[in-house]
Amino acid sequence: MDNFTFYSPTYFIFGKNTEKDTGKYVKRFGGNKVLIHYGGGSVIRSGLLDRIKVSLDEEEIEYIELGGVKPNPRSGLVYEGIDLCKKEKVDFILAVGGGSVIDSAKAIAAGTLYEGDFWDFYEGKPIEKALPVGTVLTIAAAGSEGSPNSVITNENGMYKRGTKAEVLRPVFSILNPVLSQTVPPYQTACGIVDIMAHLLERYFTTTKDVEVTDRLIEGLLLTMIHEAPRVMKDPNNYEARANIMWAGMLAHNNLCGVGRVQDWASHNIEHELSALYDCAHGAGLAVVFPAWMTYNMKHDINRFAQLAVRVWGCQMDFANPENTAREGIEALKRFFKSIGMPSNFKELGAKEEDIPKMAHKACYSGTRNGTIGGFVKLDEKDVINIYRLML
Amino acid sequence: MDNFTFYSPTYFIFGKNTEKDTGKYVKRFGGNKVLIHYGGGSVIRSGLLDRIKVSLDEEEIEYIELGGVKPNPRSGLVYEGIDLCKKEKVDFILAVGGGSVIDSAKAIAAGTLYEGDFWDFYEGKPIEKALPVGTVLTIAAAGSEGSPNSVITNENGMYKRGTKAEVLRPVFSILNPVLSQTVPPYQTACGIVDIMAHLLERYFTTTKDVEVTDRLIEGLLLTMIHEAPRVMKDPNNYEARANIMWAGMLAHNNLCGVGRVQDWASHNIEHELSALYDCAHGAGLAVVFPAWMTYNMKHDINRFAQLAVRVWGCQMDFANPENTAREGIEALKRFFKSIGMPSNFKELGAKEEDIPKMAHKACYSGTRNGTIGGFVKLDEKDVINIYRLML
Repeated sequence: MDNFTFYSPTYFIFGKNTEKDTGKYVKRFGGNKVLIHYGGGSVIRSGLLDRIKVSLDEEEIEYIELGGVKPNPRSGLVYEGIDLCKKEKVDFILAVGGGSVIDSAKAIAAGTLYEGDFWDFYEGKPIEKALPVGTVLTIAAAGSEGSPNSVITNENGMYKRGTKAEVLRPVFSILNPVLSQTVPPYQTACGIVDIMAHLLERYFTTTKDVEVTDRLIEGLLLTMIHEAPRVMKDPNNYEARANIMWAGMLAHNNLCGVGRVQDWASHNIEHELSALYDCAHGAGLAVVFPAWMTYNMKHDINRFAQLAVRVWGCQMDFANPENTAREGIEALKRFFKSIGMPSNFKELGAKEEDIPKMAHKACYSGTRNGTIGGFVKLDEKDVINIYRLML
Repeated sequence: MDNFTFYSPTYFIFGKNTEKDTGKYVKRFGGNKVLIHYGGGSVIRSGLLDRIKVSLDEEEIEYIELGGVKPNPRSGLVYEGIDLCKKEKVDFILAVGGGSVIDSAKAIAAGTLYEGDFWDFYEGKPIEKALPVGTVLTIAAAGSEGSPNSVITNENGMYKRGTKAEVLRPVFSILNPVLSQTVPPYQTACGIVDIMAHLLERYFTTTKDVEVTDRLIEGLLLTMIHEAPRVMKDPNNYEARANIMWAGMLAHNNLCGVGRVQDWASHNIEHELSALYDCAHGAGLAVVFPAWMTYNMKHDINRFAQLAVRVWGCQMDFANPENTAREGIEALKRFFKSIGMPSNFKELGAKEEDIPKMAHKACYSGTRNGTIGGFVKLDEKDVINIYRLML
């Protein structure tokens, strides 16, 4: 196991009706003048935004609003939010929504306390300070409610880039699974894939002797496999929504990634798809991951076989572990298909002719200098091959 | 799943040589005048205390010392520590040792900021403030390095009582598995049992649909089962020590216990044994847990069968799940025996004639009013029966 630090200081409030305490927690964590940041009209139509405003009013907390965050959140709205926060002397950002809203809120939080262009942070500049961010989560997927990460798409060239800083971890996150019951089936499934992908990115490692994190990842994957069909069958299944929502946070606050090399090439490869075609990140990952696994399993057959046996319940083929490894990948594909996810470029709306361009961007975006991935280093040619497996 | 809050804000620094940064973290978390609290001579003999002092000197942090914490830490030394801290205007407690030292440090931290008798907190009074506590862990067992808990034995009557408060969570904990390599085999095994007991206390629940925490607990138990024989065979196996040490923290920071009823009767039953005979807490638990399980499995045979199948690899007896449940208990007993743990009163040095007295204390100590346990409510007669299963 490698040396590591782990710090997950977010205060989590989980369960039914918990959003009624939003004002209390904003106050507890120092908010006096709040920007409420959200997406489309669903939080308005559902009455959630009103309930949150009542809760802020009860604590006599001032607030302003900025809605309009889109999936794959854009730089334009971030600039708008930063200007607004600077002008209005906002001291707390409250994100009401899913990963896109929270990621956008984090970008605004860091940008407000910075004199330069916030995009610098997404080009590799370390973030030293940010306004505190609180969240009220409405969809289980990105894990941004507990993570130090934020991903933004720069509209100037449609570059999708991530940043990461301890100061971006939300100070509190309110997780009420009931709020996710209105998420449509397709988006629910995309969230499930995203959560599983966060686990798999950490699972594929070159670090030896990481039983404790292996077992945590496997446990959370087993949870997802158990709960996903239940929630697809009945969107109002509170218990399934609850298990998935909490697993989604645990999948990405790095509990499962400490002390081990992680991969993340599949995320890099997917980001080019969602940046170019504006497809859902989870749908993109459902296409990318099996291809990435097929291409790379030869580098550690036993790790892929371990996944197949422990998570998918495959029988180990001791004479030929590669069969078991491959069986595990097939099980993952069938699972993604069973929850209505796409399995190839065509179903995703992606085009073969864009492959070279995407592969180049994937390998050279931001601070990358030609290779991606921690488990296996992939160059542009490898990434082209992986994209081609998705045709 | 029940509603819950989860807040684990401890900053963990894990790995080789990490104790050299102790001074840096004390400073970061506001310590100017430190009480270094420790146990016997082993931290002196090993040179650990000297290395920590060098690290504090480098940051120009003042310190005083109080050694002498014994296993099952006593109230006497806590009073001494509180007097010292008040007199010397200490603003930070640094615990160097295992669970006993950390628990004692937490008691001093709370008592120093309190005008009354610190024992009030162990009789049920809520703790509102405490000095910050940092830890350098030397043994994987109690999980006190990440937990809000503290257990102290009052020498006036040998009452062993616990308290719990968010302000008792350490602000930082340094976990270097190398420091645990010198722990003798018996204490290593006691630590392993303690960790597994923290997981099992949370596993036995009446809350339905808690797949996510079930799977986390099972994953950590599987980790312990994998790593324990490796460390018993070779005390210097760093990787095994590392996996066990991190699992020990995760077993008790309540990651595995959120949103579910927990049991804890076995701990209550054991505390009377270690209070009376001063046996190691882990050794006591190794005797108590199989007895508690045997006595209570009828209340939810399928939960016991699930543990047997998922953790111990038993084949499910679908015609008679009770056989599987029982097989799981036998596997646990064999496991404890394999790492050199006692299995009955005699091996523990406990006496049959003390059973009624212990059962009474277990059911009526502190705020308890005649019953213990969350999974099954046990009265004094039940506890007597459970003690008798250990003869």
